[in-house]
Amino acid sequence: MTTIKFDYSPLTKFVHENELPEIQKMVTACDDELRHKTGAGKDFIGYVDLPVEYDHEEFDRIKKAAAKIRQDSEVFVAIGIGGSYLGARMACDFLNLNYGNWQKDHEGPIVLFAGNSISGTYLQEILDLIGDKSFSINVISKSGTTTEPSIAFRVLKKKLVDKYGKEEAAKRIYATTDKAKGALKTEADAEGYEEFVVPDAIGGRYSVMSAVGLLPIAVAGGDIDKLMEGFAAGREAYSNPDLSQNEAYQYAALRNILMRKGYNVEILENYEPSLQYLGEWWKQLAGESEGKDQKGIYPSSANFSTDLHSLGQYIQEGQRFLFETVVMVDHPKYDVEIPVEEEDLDGLKYLEGKNMNYVNEQAYRGVVIAHTDGGVPVMTIHIDQQDEFTLGQLVYFFEIAIGISGYLNGINPFNQPGVEDYKRNMFALLGKPGFEEQTNEIKQREGDFF
Amino acid sequence: MTTIKFDYSPLTKFVHENELPEIQKMVTACDDELRHKTGAGKDFIGYVDLPVEYDHEEFDRIKKAAAKIRQDSEVFVAIGIGGSYLGARMACDFLNLNYGNWQKDHEGPIVLFAGNSISGTYLQEILDLIGDKSFSINVISKSGTTTEPSIAFRVLKKKLVDKYGKEEAAKRIYATTDKAKGALKTEADAEGYEEFVVPDAIGGRYSVMSAVGLLPIAVAGGDIDKLMEGFAAGREAYSNPDLSQNEAYQYAALRNILMRKGYNVEILENYEPSLQYLGEWWKQLAGESEGKDQKGIYPSSANFSTDLHSLGQYIQEGQRFLFETVVMVDHPKYDVEIPVEEEDLDGLKYLEGKNMNYVNEQAYRGVVIAHTDGGVPVMTIHIDQQDEFTLGQLVYFFEIAIGISGYLNGINPFNQPGVEDYKRNMFALLGKPGFEEQTNEIKQREGDFF
Repeated sequence: MTTIKFDYSPLTKFVHENELPEIQKMVTACDDELRHKTGAGKDFIGYVDLPVEYDHEEFDRIKKAAAKIRQDSEVFVAIGIGGSYLGARMACDFLNLNYGNWQKDHEGPIVLFAGNSISGTYLQEILDLIGDKSFSINVISKSGTTTEPSIAFRVLKKKLVDKYGKEEAAKRIYATTDKAKGALKTEADAEGYEEFVVPDAIGGRYSVMSAVGLLPIAVAGGDIDKLMEGFAAGREAYSNPDLSQNEAYQYAALRNILMRKGYNVEILENYEPSLQYLGEWWKQLAGESEGKDQKGIYPSSANFSTDLHSLGQYIQEGQRFLFETVVMVDHPKYDVEIPVEEEDLDGLKYLEGKNMNYVNEQAYRGVVIAHTDGGVPVMTIHIDQQDEFTLGQLVYFFEIAIGISGYLNGINPFNQPGVEDYKRNMFALLGKPGFEEQTNEIKQREGDFF
Repeated sequence: MTTIKFDYSPLTKFVHENELPEIQKMVTACDDELRHKTGAGKDFIGYVDLPVEYDHEEFDRIKKAAAKIRQDSEVFVAIGIGGSYLGARMACDFLNLNYGNWQKDHEGPIVLFAGNSISGTYLQEILDLIGDKSFSINVISKSGTTTEPSIAFRVLKKKLVDKYGKEEAAKRIYATTDKAKGALKTEADAEGYEEFVVPDAIGGRYSVMSAVGLLPIAVAGGDIDKLMEGFAAGREAYSNPDLSQNEAYQYAALRNILMRKGYNVEILENYEPSLQYLGEWWKQLAGESEGKDQKGIYPSSANFSTDLHSLGQYIQEGQRFLFETVVMVDHPKYDVEIPVEEEDLDGLKYLEGKNMNYVNEQAYRGVVIAHTDGGVPVMTIHIDQQDEFTLGQLVYFFEIAIGISGYLNGINPFNQPGVEDYKRNMFALLGKPGFEEQTNEIKQREGDFF
């Protein structure tokens, strides 16, 4: 059973019927590399079987920890960056768990995210928002030494210890980290924090369905059993290498076909504001997986209809190197009827008694036709609703598609060598011990830049 | 006096010294078109002199209305889309007026935005958030017939009338619309709403410093006197056509030079989460102004250091058609010291006693050098702080730069013909009276797409 439907009907103008069959052999080869873990980045392909190969004991502990936190904390701060932030944030928004955070009658804690920037202003505001409320922390870092989360953890831990004392504070710190080694693992063992595991064989941007994402999602009120069911249904639905049978592979193949025609920028779009962070999560997944060796599709995102009154002009008539992938919710959570008015000053009488979601759907259809006419290929991923089951499937859809897509482009989709470059410079500029040589070098070059 | 400093030092690798002088003549010609209002879109160049030519009586009424709303409303809903949304939203975030919205001791109303999508779920959540709180509405629409804000206005007006009765409701509706004609103007006159003007000679995306943006910003607690002072300072600072004297023109010229070398995607970046919507506002300003006639730079945005762990990989090593413009805050609002710990498990001992903003600054510097080495041109707009005066200048900087930039590219930066295409299709699909012919046409084509 799948609650997702991929539709590329509008591509007829851009992709000939023979093109998908002609790429099948390559897709099959990539599928083989991925399934048998023989391709580039083979040590990080664990996410493919994660839906059926996860630690059930830990999964139960996640639910218990979430229940405790929902009981004893008014605020919950998830500390992480990159894959240790965007997945949980995306899921909480997607499931509409966040919007009511500040409602008086909101059940469970307010979920905040920290350690996802180096802004002192942002962290100070988090401290102010916590104020004198009861709170718990989930620090998420495989190494425990990533600069952003480490700083935020020091600061928030101090607030926790000041408030509760060292012993009680330790009971309010949940560490999601390496199973065996690293700074955070060592500290968690020594202090007795409850521990969850960032799996070895899964890279950060593919980790939302591990403890990395599951604990924050569960604390926010998400049903992680249903989420895993959907994730497993995704694995079922997208396991056949035959392009005619596998919609995730169709998406992977078509975006590669389009790229080879010069469509080098993909915009992920939605018609629901709560899907904004799906775009942010996807940009990391796609961009960090494929943007290397001077190759890859540049991932961008837009929120419609908002951005139809913004980027819409560019998409319709700007340079022609764009293509669009829409994530369309077929059955949104709520709907609102357009009220009757006596006069028809605003010209909406023809819509009276109709629902907003119906209008939204026609906007989507009008855009698909207009942008196609304007020379922009559009594909759509229809999702039934914004629930946990569908989200689990959708995550699998994108993760497996991006794995295949990277391989099709001759790219290792599971490393991120370029992320180290700025870090090396930053450590050199900060005078980090061990970077003495780089510090000398960069100090000599600095004058050319600033 | 200017609190903004534009720095393009890192471009030496990409732009030769002769290139700016060589484009001076064209810049001068474009400046002439803009200042004398003789160029394309000449009826929409009013923003150039808006800092000194605005309605002072209305300005005072905006402040009075804002004071009344802050007194009598727990929630304030600004209804608008595109330029009638993004400017106010950007400013409220930039000035950090929003973060405390839900704090118990927050002064003034919670500011919400509606009419910026067609999502029934989003609007229902706005209704729920208002609940039984006292509230006022600012409906912002030149025509009064734009679909998104018109629907939201009908729904929220109904809630207002149900709660307060027709007479009191009319005192809680503020209409920002055309000065003389249109649906909303007619209704406002008939019902006695307080009215503010969307100026004729200023397009939506250039309108944040008119009543369109000023009322929501003032209600949120922004000092609009200081904002206008900064806006006027921007006009002073960026009025000289000589490139060596005008940093906004330098930015305009350099982004055109880079585009002509194949750098077709510009990423606007920040190191402060509260600048996320500066990117959204800028994307409309740049993309809607320049994305036409199959030309223009595609505008994208990123939030660092968050996205250094996401898009960062692509920027460092992906396809080489990107350039970056950073908006860097030199003196952020708050700072946080990195606490001392006994042990050095996380390896942060070398940063103890240092402040986060210092680390953030080194991250920025490290990124500039790394990305330049990776083949990505980087420019920086340094802003002194996130205050009203600086924001006013920054808005002028971008608005004048984009006007010049569009002209340099042979584009009318003041129209948006492509935005109508999807609307026409949507009206046809919805069966709007007057679109019968288009309805017939599109019904015949629909099967090819869905």
